[in-house]
Amino acid sequence: MYRSHNCGELRIADINREVTLAGWVQKSRDKGFMVWVDLRDRFGITQLIFDESRTSTSIMQQAKGLGREFVIQIKGSVIERESKNKNIATGDIEVLVNELTVLNASEIPPFTIEDETDGGEDIRMKYRYLDIRRNPVKNSLLFRHKVTQEVRNYLSNLDFCEVETPYLIKSTPEGARDFIVPSRMNPGQFYALPQSPQTFKQLLMVGGLDRYFQIVKCFRDEDLRADRQPEFTQIDCEMSFIEQEDILDVFEGLTRHLLKAIHKIEVSKFPRMTFDEAMRTYGNDKPDIRFGMKFGELNAVAQHKDFAVFNNAELVVGIAIPQAASYTRKQIDELIEWVKRPQVGASGMVYCKCELDGSYKSSVDKFYDQADLSKWAEATGAVAGDLIVVLSGPTLKTRTQLSALRMEMGNRLGLRKPNEFAPLWVIDFPLLEWDEDSARYHAMHHPFTSPKQEDIHLLDTNPGKVRANAYDLVLNGNEIGGGSIRIHDKETQALMFKHLGFTADEAQEQFGFLMNAFQYGAPPHGGLAFGLDRLTAILGGQETIRDFIAFPKNNAGRDVMIDAPSPIAGSQLEELSIALDLD
Amino acid sequence: MYRSHNCGELRIADINREVTLAGWVQKSRDKGFMVWVDLRDRFGITQLIFDESRTSTSIMQQAKGLGREFVIQIKGSVIERESKNKNIATGDIEVLVNELTVLNASEIPPFTIEDETDGGEDIRMKYRYLDIRRNPVKNSLLFRHKVTQEVRNYLSNLDFCEVETPYLIKSTPEGARDFIVPSRMNPGQFYALPQSPQTFKQLLMVGGLDRYFQIVKCFRDEDLRADRQPEFTQIDCEMSFIEQEDILDVFEGLTRHLLKAIHKIEVSKFPRMTFDEAMRTYGNDKPDIRFGMKFGELNAVAQHKDFAVFNNAELVVGIAIPQAASYTRKQIDELIEWVKRPQVGASGMVYCKCELDGSYKSSVDKFYDQADLSKWAEATGAVAGDLIVVLSGPTLKTRTQLSALRMEMGNRLGLRKPNEFAPLWVIDFPLLEWDEDSARYHAMHHPFTSPKQEDIHLLDTNPGKVRANAYDLVLNGNEIGGGSIRIHDKETQALMFKHLGFTADEAQEQFGFLMNAFQYGAPPHGGLAFGLDRLTAILGGQETIRDFIAFPKNNAGRDVMIDAPSPIAGSQLEELSIALDLD
Repeated sequence: MYRSHNCGELRIADINREVTLAGWVQKSRDKGFMVWVDLRDRFGITQLIFDESRTSTSIMQQAKGLGREFVIQIKGSVIERESKNKNIATGDIEVLVNELTVLNASEIPPFTIEDETDGGEDIRMKYRYLDIRRNPVKNSLLFRHKVTQEVRNYLSNLDFCEVETPYLIKSTPEGARDFIVPSRMNPGQFYALPQSPQTFKQLLMVGGLDRYFQIVKCFRDEDLRADRQPEFTQIDCEMSFIEQEDILDVFEGLTRHLLKAIHKIEVSKFPRMTFDEAMRTYGNDKPDIRFGMKFGELNAVAQHKDFAVFNNAELVVGIAIPQAASYTRKQIDELIEWVKRPQVGASGMVYCKCELDGSYKSSVDKFYDQADLSKWAEATGAVAGDLIVVLSGPTLKTRTQLSALRMEMGNRLGLRKPNEFAPLWVIDFPLLEWDEDSARYHAMHHPFTSPKQEDIHLLDTNPGKVRANAYDLVLNGNEIGGGSIRIHDKETQALMFKHLGFTADEAQEQFGFLMNAFQYGAPPHGGLAFGLDRLTAILGGQETIRDFIAFPKNNAGRDVMIDAPSPIAGSQLEELSIALDLD
Repeated sequence: MYRSHNCGELRIADINREVTLAGWVQKSRDKGFMVWVDLRDRFGITQLIFDESRTSTSIMQQAKGLGREFVIQIKGSVIERESKNKNIATGDIEVLVNELTVLNASEIPPFTIEDETDGGEDIRMKYRYLDIRRNPVKNSLLFRHKVTQEVRNYLSNLDFCEVETPYLIKSTPEGARDFIVPSRMNPGQFYALPQSPQTFKQLLMVGGLDRYFQIVKCFRDEDLRADRQPEFTQIDCEMSFIEQEDILDVFEGLTRHLLKAIHKIEVSKFPRMTFDEAMRTYGNDKPDIRFGMKFGELNAVAQHKDFAVFNNAELVVGIAIPQAASYTRKQIDELIEWVKRPQVGASGMVYCKCELDGSYKSSVDKFYDQADLSKWAEATGAVAGDLIVVLSGPTLKTRTQLSALRMEMGNRLGLRKPNEFAPLWVIDFPLLEWDEDSARYHAMHHPFTSPKQEDIHLLDTNPGKVRANAYDLVLNGNEIGGGSIRIHDKETQALMFKHLGFTADEAQEQFGFLMNAFQYGAPPHGGLAFGLDRLTAILGGQETIRDFIAFPKNNAGRDVMIDAPSPIAGSQLEELSIALDLD
């Protein structure tokens, strides 16, 4: 051991103790006759003192030569500080150094190793190993570890068994794009990296394992949007002999446990909302319910006058922005420009100020009188002082636009408090969704999701109306988990594949092993997967996942620190029986 | 929930309780007026009883139709069994059924779902989801979970932080062959799957994380020997500001904890042996020290006579097989044939019986008298009744052959007891080993291993003699873990790369990110990795790892259950800018 104590543990009770410490030079102050050095390690910072009157000249000289991020080892005695620092745990003491060894020198780091650094995103990613020395990143990694430990212990105590499923599996065209891995021993053949362990966990249920979980890397070769990673981590779970209610119970329990263990927050029973209700009320299947601004549908109270824009719209819908009636024309114009940005895509926005005197002033006063506008206020829940904003157009699109505006206003008005946690179950998702490109229905969750028994008859006549036994756990406006009760008999599974446009042969080729397994006594089962990266970030009070991943990739899927991906030797390609095909 | 209790928990205290159970039909006995069904789930077996006089006719009929592995749900009342079964936990009771639902029928399974099955390896792998229903496999998976939970909790309590390192990394020609992954977004470029997180864990140390671990999948595209898997799991660990002794301490503690938590076995301080001593004494760097038969080197006492075979040999070495002096000529011939098999490769074997009367009878009596042979006995530790067997030839080869024979005899004589655990540290491994094929030295451990300070001067003159700060943990004749103190300064790392035959450019291209990192204050660090598959198997008292892996691959790297790897669509290849190149 290079140390007797770490840099975070010495206290006033340790005074006069001879100690050995090791760590990094965080900073040093040289007053000529005295040098102070802040010595840092993972556990904290301890102040070292070198003093002309008490320290040998040679060590004094050495101390003056220390640069930022030098790795040093010192021996010395703990003394009481003259001016105590209440901000750090070791702030009552300092160590008077009598021996100093430089274990490793350091170049000047390319950015400051401070909580607030001067380094931009790119340089921090390139030197990620230095970025990790900073508290915000280091603490995020420690926090992630704490979360996973809590998850593992909680589930293990409930008889869940963690099973490692394989990473080299089979490519299936359904779903997102696979990363593939050429097989050298089987020329012309390829493994795929799993997008999720879905079929394996179902096979474990067929295998009688009863309660499975796994914290596991998954892979999707998608064009990366901001804050998506080609490899990401799931808390993957599956249970047998259960119904939807049991799953919701267990994972509500897990989430409640995490909030309590980590934040000491007690949350009562999570509210539930159907998919339909979430879409109607928040325009979104993962609503942030920490704040209001619920949607008010205005068709009934706005389509009876001569305002053609509303009359021609499938949906007219508004929200009441609290205390925004006082917005200036300029502020409102900015909002209109905001919803018209291509990322949102509204064609315009109507507004109505609910004045403090009880009157209304709208941008469409030509068409609507005070009585009309009071009905808008009623539908949106607006009170005096609020600003009602209204969008119109095709239902789904308009809801999405208004939801974006609602979230934006939630952010601007500080209503999305990072330390407040509002979990929500969204249930009764549709089984299928129409895909314009391929002109067929796709599984909204995945093809193994069971339809609600009472809706199965609609599969032939109105497939879009069939509801699934599928559910999402939403936390603060983010989907942190989702799952379903699975199909467990071969006939229903075959029916699903048929409705998803698979021929019997295609279904057999791609999922034959699962359908075969269903012939040998598959139990009723279902499960859920949490996105660990996002869950951790949100529990950590943040919305970007990157600092909770030790070595993330950038939006081009590159690891700029190790410079991957990269070209490989021709001989490697040859061994794998593949060639480049670059045009 | 489909059940009020699982199939392993009802006891005599539950008599008269109305219960709901669900599970698989393990077997049924139909006596006409009475039917017994063993209902099985992960937790155990509960006997169900259907009785003409107490069960409705329709349910009686249903019960008679139940086949093996049908999934059923029943309601009934717990009653005391007439003839109790002491072999199972629920053996005092049975459940008189009054309601029966078949949740899923089953085809007749392709092999019996019993502890001893009639299914061969191939069919069990194809139907692995059925194999997992068998206790030996199911219990192995539960056991593995218990081991990993113990490891995680133990290390977490010591401030180790589990960090997920990336799976899509950079290919490096050093070491075994990489699996590679074409990058669609970076045409012509490839990721590699990690052979181990080695460089990342070192970067985490540079990043100040201090104590890291991870239970993580690793990948090697090797031609598979029996009991090797292309994907395998490591318990990967690294520590900063430590010396070799600290690492041995921590992981000896972990191993001791596992033996205690799992087997209630207390092991005192682990013995240590240098690599040289292990090779000299056991012909092997991972000796099984549960039994003796230590090597006796006989050069001094066998090369003074006219026996040319010995005189021309670099090494003459023997072991004493306990109580084998009574072996018949036939038995001894069989041993000679055994060492001459191509897998062992000895050219012959000399033997000497230590008779009970104190005399010696050898196959080379022509050359050696009783006094000579008594020295053989002394060197090998043979006592009256033992059989000394002697091999000779080039040192390394001969040791390897005799080690194989020693292990074989250990097995045959029942000296390798699965429930006895004999851990051992092997230390002071050589830094480099000569590779005949490439005619250069390779890193024995890996290129980041630090040489012993006092041996560095030998790097230029006698590289093969340089010892490393490298160590293996051996358990019952298996290497279950290995590691080293790493190089932490750029100069030594550059020196190593030079001695491994890298040009400065090659070293920079492949490991530049690590050497760059060393410029910014790398702490002294080192670590170790356990092979989890093997560790679990050995702790489970077995030597084959396959049953401790949920979905293993066969020796051709295939998953025969899901039929992977497999061909993929031409459009997938095209998107990835690669083509097949099959000749």
